Amino acid sequence: MKLLLIGATGTIGRAVAAVLSPRQELVAVTRHSEPLHVDISSSESVRALFAAAGPIDGVICAAGAARFKPLAQLHDDDFAFTLQNKLMGQVNVVREGLQRLRDGGVIVVTSGILSRLPAPGSGAISLVNAGLEGFVRAAAIEAPRGIRVNAVSPPWVSETLIELGMDPKGGLPASAVAQAYARAVEGQMTGQVIEP
Amino acid sequence: MKLLLIGATGTIGRAVAAVLSPRQELVAVTRHSEPLHVDISSSESVRALFAAAGPIDGVICAAGAARFKPLAQLHDDDFAFTLQNKLMGQVNVVREGLQRLRDGGVIVVTSGILSRLPAPGSGAISLVNAGLEGFVRAAAIEAPRGIRVNAVSPPWVSETLIELGMDPKGGLPASAVAQAYARAVEGQMTGQVIEP
Repeated sequence: MKLLLIGATGTIGRAVAAVLSPRQELVAVTRHSEPLHVDISSSESVRALFAAAGPIDGVICAAGAARFKPLAQLHDDDFAFTLQNKLMGQVNVVREGLQRLRDGGVIVVTSGILSRLPAPGSGAISLVNAGLEGFVRAAAIEAPRGIRVNAVSPPWVSETLIELGMDPKGGLPASAVAQAYARAVEGQMTGQVIEP
Repeated sequence: MKLLLIGATGTIGRAVAAVLSPRQELVAVTRHSEPLHVDISSSESVRALFAAAGPIDGVICAAGAARFKPLAQLHDDDFAFTLQNKLMGQVNVVREGLQRLRDGGVIVVTSGILSRLPAPGSGAISLVNAGLEGFVRAAAIEAPRGIRVNAVSPPWVSETLIELGMDPKGGLPASAVAQAYARAVEGQMTGQVIEP
């Protein structure tokens, strides 16, 4: 299968590429890649990506910015930013993918454990992760032409915890998280939230 | 307790009033009620409501518009409308309530069964219902001064099905749904999604 990998240079994106590239044709996409690139917070940019990509079988999105801060300090613009980026950015990838992918294609987006297990500071992220999961369940039942739609809901990733100066034992290595994306792409399920 | 009931004239709002008014002091609020009124899609209007209400112990929100149509016909503005109304409208009621309610107060918002069990046409609604539930779980753990935050997730309401010309046996009477709001207000739970 020929698959777009949005967020290809991130911690999860690199691990997904390592797992899938031996057996699938991956096209790495970031905000600044050439010739294909995307800013998922812009619906025009998402549409332009699919138009420029030509015929493809699938898209994996491991990108999406979000604001993490104490609830009393999360302002209107923090919610607007997070909804526009991690939530509607990925929703728009799904919507456009449903129109553009080849028959039997697959779409995988990224939510996260905070949807079910919040932490102080996760108000906006818990909202968008859970919202994305609700949307994936709904989109799957209206997906045309056998296209499947799933979300992967990663826990904290060890490599990210190290970058934040935290104990990596509280997380899962990116290589293990990437296996969930492989299952979402290569399995038969649709409308599922897959927890690595 | 003195409680604002936003959406007091809707099918669920009227049933909640019938259950709770014998034992709580309810203040009915709609878009056009006087002296208190609110358009929850406007964060300024939500702030003005709480400022005008004076000291209160709780708020119940049974209001929030959303767009229901086939996924391929749900346009950018349908998502924007639904996010601004049912989702961020209620999120803003929670955020403002956490600052304004008396110690030990309670906030109850309304999601819906489509968060977990989608139907064709529910793409935007499944998203906002699930997103609201994720936010409630997160907000509850950062709520100050013993304030509790819960969501009620109603199934289809029989009275609504009748209005839509559908079989009311597929739903639950509003009077039964209202009991879930009473439990959310008068029980001890927080961060919960209560299914009538």
